[in-house]
Amino acid sequence: MNKKMSLILAAVFTALALPAYAQFAKPEDAVKYRKASFTLMGAHFGRVGAMVNGRVPFDTKVAAENTELVADLAKLPWPAFGEGTDKGETRAKPEIWKESAKFKELSDKFQAEAVKLQAAGKTGNLDAIKVAFGATGASCKACHDNFRKD
Amino acid sequence: MNKKMSLILAAVFTALALPAYAQFAKPEDAVKYRKASFTLMGAHFGRVGAMVNGRVPFDTKVAAENTELVADLAKLPWPAFGEGTDKGETRAKPEIWKESAKFKELSDKFQAEAVKLQAAGKTGNLDAIKVAFGATGASCKACHDNFRKD
Repeated sequence: MNKKMSLILAAVFTALALPAYAQFAKPEDAVKYRKASFTLMGAHFGRVGAMVNGRVPFDTKVAAENTELVADLAKLPWPAFGEGTDKGETRAKPEIWKESAKFKELSDKFQAEAVKLQAAGKTGNLDAIKVAFGATGASCKACHDNFRKD
Repeated sequence: MNKKMSLILAAVFTALALPAYAQFAKPEDAVKYRKASFTLMGAHFGRVGAMVNGRVPFDTKVAAENTELVADLAKLPWPAFGEGTDKGETRAKPEIWKESAKFKELSDKFQAEAVKLQAAGKTGNLDAIKVAFGATGASCKACHDNFRKD
């Protein structure tokens, strides 16, 4: 294989290895993006919480829509925690990059809980939603306790 | 019908008329939420644009994922433009609340174009995506030109 072909293949493999969402022109774009995804997640998770805690009446449609949104949004922020995005207006702790395996484990756990919450949301059963909401909230907290500044 | 029953029914009808996402504790929460939704929309629309403009290689999976995200996110910000959310750090022009029918028309148009873009994204046909991307971008611009400060 000649050198030119090697370089082309290396570029192709690098492109294939890139996650679909890891495309930010500047680190601050990544920070802004991941904060936006947590803002939306929090809002929609909060709407589920309002029903779980009885602050607003339970509505199966609202529950299904919001739990689906939480699960969809839960997939987004992680590729925006690339190397070099530890600067600027962020509450991300340096541990995210020092203990990346643990960060991945906790973020994967959260996504898995969000998928279960979405499934519970589809059932229209408030008790099932309460259980999944609690587990999802605990997985948020586990990651925040380790990796987010107060 | 007695007065108590009238009040209960009025409350029920008001609750039914509320859009599912019009639930913000404070106006600044609504502003933060809608800005977050535009940030994510812009990021994912930009990833489609990078393929449309040939800056990155066309990838059917990336196109399908990102056009779906744009269509899903396109539904979100509008209930966060409630009365009283014209203050603070926002580029929203007062015309949004003065010409609300026009604002609704343009935001509905954008959502419809985003749905067409999602459909094009599913085809895996770059030419179809280019057409829908152009129409969606034009509908973004139409609303920005009228209702967003520079």
